[in-house]
Amino acid sequence: MTTTARLSLNQITTRGWSLPEAVRGCAEAGIPAIGLWRDKVAEVGAARAAGLVRAAGLSVSSLCRGGFLTATDPAARRAALADNLRAVEEAAELGTDTLVLVVGGLPEGDRDLPAARTRVADLLAELAPHAGDLGVRLAIEPLHPMFCADRAVVSTLGQALDLAELFPADQVGVVVDSYHVWWDPELGAQLARAGAGGRIAAYQVGDWTLPLPADALLGRGHVGDGCIDFRTLTDQVTAAGYTGWIEVEIFNQEVWETPGAETLRTLVERHTVHVVPAG
Amino acid sequence: MTTTARLSLNQITTRGWSLPEAVRGCAEAGIPAIGLWRDKVAEVGAARAAGLVRAAGLSVSSLCRGGFLTATDPAARRAALADNLRAVEEAAELGTDTLVLVVGGLPEGDRDLPAARTRVADLLAELAPHAGDLGVRLAIEPLHPMFCADRAVVSTLGQALDLAELFPADQVGVVVDSYHVWWDPELGAQLARAGAGGRIAAYQVGDWTLPLPADALLGRGHVGDGCIDFRTLTDQVTAAGYTGWIEVEIFNQEVWETPGAETLRTLVERHTVHVVPAG
Repeated sequence: MTTTARLSLNQITTRGWSLPEAVRGCAEAGIPAIGLWRDKVAEVGAARAAGLVRAAGLSVSSLCRGGFLTATDPAARRAALADNLRAVEEAAELGTDTLVLVVGGLPEGDRDLPAARTRVADLLAELAPHAGDLGVRLAIEPLHPMFCADRAVVSTLGQALDLAELFPADQVGVVVDSYHVWWDPELGAQLARAGAGGRIAAYQVGDWTLPLPADALLGRGHVGDGCIDFRTLTDQVTAAGYTGWIEVEIFNQEVWETPGAETLRTLVERHTVHVVPAG
Repeated sequence: MTTTARLSLNQITTRGWSLPEAVRGCAEAGIPAIGLWRDKVAEVGAARAAGLVRAAGLSVSSLCRGGFLTATDPAARRAALADNLRAVEEAAELGTDTLVLVVGGLPEGDRDLPAARTRVADLLAELAPHAGDLGVRLAIEPLHPMFCADRAVVSTLGQALDLAELFPADQVGVVVDSYHVWWDPELGAQLARAGAGGRIAAYQVGDWTLPLPADALLGRGHVGDGCIDFRTLTDQVTAAGYTGWIEVEIFNQEVWETPGAETLRTLVERHTVHVVPAG
């Protein structure tokens, strides 16, 4: 097995590339998989996207993303449900078994966090059987607690597992994203729990770098540029039984302004040094 | 009991004021207590600071802050220990039983989070008996996980309690700061645990407002300006048996540029409306 055998490019990392460009870039860099984003898929259409990926010999590690399930307004909830059902269908059409969910934050002016979390569980209950029918697993991504108010009321791996375990393991799993979970003192125990239950649907990597940028969303660095111990984390994820794709997902303006081919060279190099060392 | 009977001004909230100005401001606003900062105390000397506070009829709710216990270099660790011992003595001299500790982040270039956490426990073991001897409790403050790398490797109330419970309850407690813990899905359970063990040493309030500012440290808003449900949180803290001061601690450039007397009027008003409603 080559050191890049499990490496995947999450498409946001090369945000300046269209889907055809990203697919070509992965093929040329020897990266065997890609995590697609719905907006980029929409630019070419799901059928053509699926064809391009297949023709290039790539696997689709995940589709990003569904979610945003916390609205209180009934019409907004119906719209969210419909959009997530479309996302499940797109995932199936693209040939991936993993739909990443960012569950959504507090509605504007709302302070009831427990109620928002309950609404997430309620919509998951409507979505999960449909996803299961299409062979797609809903992958709940706990986001870093600094995004609790505006993006995801699910903030820890333990909390994501509490939600996922309400449903069969083939319908709902969790995403382990280093950037979001690295600080968690319960991480080791929760990874073991996730592994024992067969709940790890995706492993994403990106580093925590300082200082945080003006836009907190864009603070992620290349693996190795920050303070996350990727060797230990990857060992824990591996010990939990996860053998799937390792997706590099970096939101960072500077990375986005770098030519894609150069970014992919960095990905391969960092992956080899910090995540899956040779021999 | 008036609605402000438990209200305290944490001195950082009126950062532009010297200690004598803050003491006078509290007395004039009918705020019965103040949480002091060491740099402001140092400007006038601990003895004079203690005298000023006493003469104004104020209580000292806490001293901010000791900590920064994560250095690896032996000389730096000895210096941290010595500085914290001085902080304990200052707290005793100022007449407060509570020294707030911000435990420190990862040393530059270091990625070993578990080891940093162990070093915190090791230095606490050296400090705790001395603090106990002087009637001062070390109050471990879990900071929001977005400060894990650079300020505090203790990120949740549960983790702070795990540390505190290594020591007698009169030597080591925890700080509950709304801004740092509001997102935590375990918060209710950990508050109950903290209360049952008599570990809540301080309750600080400040709101989570969006968007996060360029300097993430300065993102706190006045109570009521953000998305924290202070009524519910205060009920939980009260149900846990905490009857002590409620300190308002706000790091916010705009608040700092507001005249102190105006800030104190806002404190009293928000406290009455959102934290301890009349009647």
